[in-house]
Amino acid sequence: MSTGFRIIKNCCTGGARTGKVFTSHGPVSTPVFAPVGSQATVKTLATLDLERIGTDMILANTYHLYLRPGVEVIEKLGGLHKFMSWPHAILTDSGGYQIFSMEGLRRVDDSGVVFRSHIDGSQHRITPQSAIKYQESLGADIIMVLDECPSPVGKFDFIKRSMERTHLWAEICLDSKKDSDQALFAITQGGLYPELRRRSARVLTSMGFDGYAIGGLSLGEPKQLTMNMVELTVPLLPEEKPRYLMGVGSPEDIIKGVERGIDIFDSALPTQVARRGALFTRRGRINIRNAAYRNVAGPVDSECSCYTCQNYSAGYLHHLLRCREMLGYRLATIHNLSFMQGLMRDIRDAICDGTFNAFRDSFFACYKTSDEAVRISQRKKWRQSRKRRDMNRS
Amino acid sequence: MSTGFRIIKNCCTGGARTGKVFTSHGPVSTPVFAPVGSQATVKTLATLDLERIGTDMILANTYHLYLRPGVEVIEKLGGLHKFMSWPHAILTDSGGYQIFSMEGLRRVDDSGVVFRSHIDGSQHRITPQSAIKYQESLGADIIMVLDECPSPVGKFDFIKRSMERTHLWAEICLDSKKDSDQALFAITQGGLYPELRRRSARVLTSMGFDGYAIGGLSLGEPKQLTMNMVELTVPLLPEEKPRYLMGVGSPEDIIKGVERGIDIFDSALPTQVARRGALFTRRGRINIRNAAYRNVAGPVDSECSCYTCQNYSAGYLHHLLRCREMLGYRLATIHNLSFMQGLMRDIRDAICDGTFNAFRDSFFACYKTSDEAVRISQRKKWRQSRKRRDMNRS
Repeated sequence: MSTGFRIIKNCCTGGARTGKVFTSHGPVSTPVFAPVGSQATVKTLATLDLERIGTDMILANTYHLYLRPGVEVIEKLGGLHKFMSWPHAILTDSGGYQIFSMEGLRRVDDSGVVFRSHIDGSQHRITPQSAIKYQESLGADIIMVLDECPSPVGKFDFIKRSMERTHLWAEICLDSKKDSDQALFAITQGGLYPELRRRSARVLTSMGFDGYAIGGLSLGEPKQLTMNMVELTVPLLPEEKPRYLMGVGSPEDIIKGVERGIDIFDSALPTQVARRGALFTRRGRINIRNAAYRNVAGPVDSECSCYTCQNYSAGYLHHLLRCREMLGYRLATIHNLSFMQGLMRDIRDAICDGTFNAFRDSFFACYKTSDEAVRISQRKKWRQSRKRRDMNRS
Repeated sequence: MSTGFRIIKNCCTGGARTGKVFTSHGPVSTPVFAPVGSQATVKTLATLDLERIGTDMILANTYHLYLRPGVEVIEKLGGLHKFMSWPHAILTDSGGYQIFSMEGLRRVDDSGVVFRSHIDGSQHRITPQSAIKYQESLGADIIMVLDECPSPVGKFDFIKRSMERTHLWAEICLDSKKDSDQALFAITQGGLYPELRRRSARVLTSMGFDGYAIGGLSLGEPKQLTMNMVELTVPLLPEEKPRYLMGVGSPEDIIKGVERGIDIFDSALPTQVARRGALFTRRGRINIRNAAYRNVAGPVDSECSCYTCQNYSAGYLHHLLRCREMLGYRLATIHNLSFMQGLMRDIRDAICDGTFNAFRDSFFACYKTSDEAVRISQRKKWRQSRKRRDMNRS
């Protein structure tokens, strides 16, 4: 495979490291945050927007693209890079997370999983073999094994059986994969059980993948537990392979993940909250829809050099989001992703300079994180609204 | 006033002419098409997008901005140009069209009109004096008198009374206007009655405005009648002043308007239909949502040099619009507005070169226009859905 990984610098205290993942669509500097483009578009943004923000890699969802427009359509149109006019690195997930996070009919056994489309309720079947085949057709630079992704608060026996199935599927995925320029990453599971997390890391690393992800976390469990699982998994992963913490993407969690040795992050959070008006600043999140911003002539963040802050006032953004104008969603997304890319650059620079710990401390001294209780209740509400939507659709 | 008009060339046969409107935000080459940015944003586009497309002038709606965010907010934030970060020319309508095209409670007398907000049902009153005051606060380069804009199919006596009120209001607007860099245009009315149309042109031109609009047309009447009214009005307008046909914006109607001596056009049509997937090409409109485009690897229009056609396939646009992805709406809007700007450039060049008639003929030989019956039925459906929306909101 042409995808490789080189560590440039390790932090002398703690696990943080900076490096480069090499792909046939260019190198990706790590730690990296990959914005989510589920339907072959990072919502509201064009290629040029993403490039201006300094994006090296994005994530696309096999589940969504399989349903619409169909993997065969994208293959006919020259693969995912050409389809979405994105010449840089792409990572695709296998579909596991989406299938297992949806409500409604779903049947899983060792050979694969039968699920219903959230669009029209039609029935589909995905297997470890087909998950690899689809991702090969899409042609992403990094592809993922099919995993069973249960709620982390499940009972021990359930999580154990599910983890063992993930291991079985990982082996099938590895065997199914053709020689190609694509890197295949395994996904460690095990819920919130340290014993299972450790076993998953040991079993999967023994198979020899191009990289290792930590999956099944950041699904509503307390953040301290997420980080505990990361802490005990990372030391069991090979140092010379990239480590990917799936679905983690708040600024504070990324810094904590980097500190514990994570190289790759993805999350829809920065783009999703942007569309609701929540914008990142060095002092924490603000909500631009609040009446306080109505008359603000200055930018959202005076220290920010993004297109939004350089050209538009906070008052104008407030107006656009209050009016549900699409430009508002785009300008907010540009701002949040610029913040994320700036954060990742600062993190990499700090690791290179040997000042990561000081950077982390000064970040947290300034950045007001969301209250844990508020966060969990908001997430619950959001998941319930998603459930209602999925049920109405099917 | 610093806004002036210079004719560069008259067509030797027919009324077409090319020129320049000078504003304190730069010159505008005519014939010009102004995209509509009702809420201080041409839907989905940022300043940079509009500039790349070659946009000289946009239209914003006083009615919408008065309601949200409020004229005083925009004034505080430095005026409309600064608010929306648009350094080029802006034209604002007075609000008349919106107020009179909305369903629901509305009371009009010679002093002004009381209406209800489509957002929250709150009651407001606008007068000719306040329409000018608001437009002065917004600071557009070209502002419009408050007019009563009745349905063109109204009875003679009703249309006559309404026209006389428009004349009365026009005089009050002229008197209310402070000395400034803003140009004030009058709006001729008179429904589909030639006698009233002629009288309106005579009365208003005798008052001495900076330019003259033809209003109250393109509201569902057969297109031939629209053009008949234009044909009989234009000869009565002063040659040295710009002529503006309000609400007209399909490619075919613009060419017909130019032929009859119109300099300025505005319409939400190109942006509105774009968001429904209707894209302009030299051969007519296509609907990119049709299944036929699913697998098309080439651009929407191989002769088009817009950002969309240069970077994305028709198949990708089809996918985005089917999935209701916001990027799709933006790419479609960029394409349609690029088409319109290209058309206006071609029109101006042809007039300059003395080849306008040949250009018009070759355009119509190639461009398949929408069937009149289909067009009217579609417009009726659209207006009904708007009525339902307005009623649900209030």
